[in-house]
Amino acid sequence: MYYDQISVGDSASVEKTISESDVYLFAGITGDLNPAHVNQAFAETTKFGTRIVHGMLTGSFFSTIFGTQLPGLGSIYVSQSLAFTAPVVIGSTVKWTVTVTEKAEKGRVHFACSGTTADGTEVVKGEAVLLPPRPPKA
Amino acid sequence: MYYDQISVGDSASVEKTISESDVYLFAGITGDLNPAHVNQAFAETTKFGTRIVHGMLTGSFFSTIFGTQLPGLGSIYVSQSLAFTAPVVIGSTVKWTVTVTEKAEKGRVHFACSGTTADGTEVVKGEAVLLPPRPPKA
Amino acid sequence: MYYDQISVGDSASVEKTISESDVYLFAGITGDLNPAHVNQAFAETTKFGTRIVHGMLTGSFFSTIFGTQLPGLGSIYVSQSLAFTAPVVIGSTVKWTVTVTEKAEKGRVHFACSGTTADGTEVVKGEAVLLPPRPPKA
Amino acid sequence: MYYDQISVGDSASVEKTISESDVYLFAGITGDLNPAHVNQAFAETTKFGTRIVHGMLTGSFFSTIFGTQLPGLGSIYVSQSLAFTAPVVIGSTVKWTVTVTEKAEKGRVHFACSGTTADGTEVVKGEAVLLPPRPPKA
Repeated sequence: MYYDQISVGDSASVEKTISESDVYLFAGITGDLNPAHVNQAFAETTKFGTRIVHGMLTGSFFSTIFGTQLPGLGSIYVSQSLAFTAPVVIGSTVKWTVTVTEKAEKGRVHFACSGTTADGTEVVKGEAVLLPPRPPKA
Repeated sequence: MYYDQISVGDSASVEKTISESDVYLFAGITGDLNPAHVNQAFAETTKFGTRIVHGMLTGSFFSTIFGTQLPGLGSIYVSQSLAFTAPVVIGSTVKWTVTVTEKAEKGRVHFACSGTTADGTEVVKGEAVLLPPRPPKA
Repeated sequence: MYYDQISVGDSASVEKTISESDVYLFAGITGDLNPAHVNQAFAETTKFGTRIVHGMLTGSFFSTIFGTQLPGLGSIYVSQSLAFTAPVVIGSTVKWTVTVTEKAEKGRVHFACSGTTADGTEVVKGEAVLLPPRPPKA
Repeated sequence: MYYDQISVGDSASVEKTISESDVYLFAGITGDLNPAHVNQAFAETTKFGTRIVHGMLTGSFFSTIFGTQLPGLGSIYVSQSLAFTAPVVIGSTVKWTVTVTEKAEKGRVHFACSGTTADGTEVVKGEAVLLPPRPPKA
């Protein structure tokens, strides 16, 4: 979608159950093999009681929405802020939603971002700025 | 490292060549199969001329430093902001560095985050807030 | 899309560069570690001269279109036939297209399926039968 | 095995428990992140009650037998038809069997293909045509 086709309040979502393999692959790619994520024996000694998902993995699904739905193909990702507001245990189903909050200058679009688990707990939130693709010149 | 062991200016880094498999696995985990990342024929028609790395993947390596080096095991990740300042092509070697900028109230530590490619181009930057682990009570 | 919303001639596509990691993961999942796919030294002695993609992997992307675009979420996959018409070397960009050819009885929709590389070579073709999702009852 | 070494009735099998990671990797490779496969909360609202395996993944194991056992190394995969006859839930152990049904002209061998779960339910069936490797010339 082009800048002119986007309105404040437009929204899009994705939803997925974050599996153990998602967490292990993310750990392997980034090298973040923190035992909180990949050591169940250790994790059982923490206040969470089990292995939790990397915050940056939980925060990466907003990119999926931006790249494939809203604004979609051809968008430029300018910035993303994330606050990790609750732990996500492996096997949680998370729904990520982005909502247009502002059409700013220079063709930039601002989004509010929120991820919640099935019980309604917000686990990640933040703001993003995107440059939607430009329409072809007439 | 505990709060009391950390000083403003402390710094730590990781470095990795981001492979095609890193990008493809990240695409698969998140579902972000945007053609800019996984379609070379398409990517050659863009201004970048080849497939680029997901910004959120490039931004995820700060987590690796926080979870494994500074502050390290037991830290709580409070927040992360990211600005994507230049494209990263697949096969780039990126060095990520975090530096303590402030020891704030409530045991929080603020970090400046920067990722640069081998030629010195800054590709991602931002700020993070961490809660270092607490020392065991005496 | 429901049966009543689908017309003969409707079409949808996906496109991807099939990477070495795609082929290796598929080999690992299925156990098909045929040297034609994962042994470059062997593959250089074959008539293809290099490692080629599993035919069943090349044939699996029609499922992606059916499950996510046309008919989309809630479809039941009844059957798929595949003919492997040309080898696909690792690194090829393939475009998969499905086109509605018939709206049959019992709510079934027939599709023609074709995958082609960037130079126009058809590498896989076949037919599929899907049951689109049913609309909620009034 | 060469054409002359193959007889009608010859048969071979593989068996595997299809794991969550198999399904998630397959989803990531193909981009088929249909919620029936990767969203447990959604899947619990469907008639299957839980996440199911992609039909094309279940159908891909016949290739494993052809490439590694019968006819084995050097075979050319001509075609494969598949009917998805029952859902396969993640964690199911499936046994895939191929049986020679016909030695056709032009060196082609026809196979009947069947996959069944441990309780005897047939979950996938079809037919395949292979070109076995040619013996070295005398």
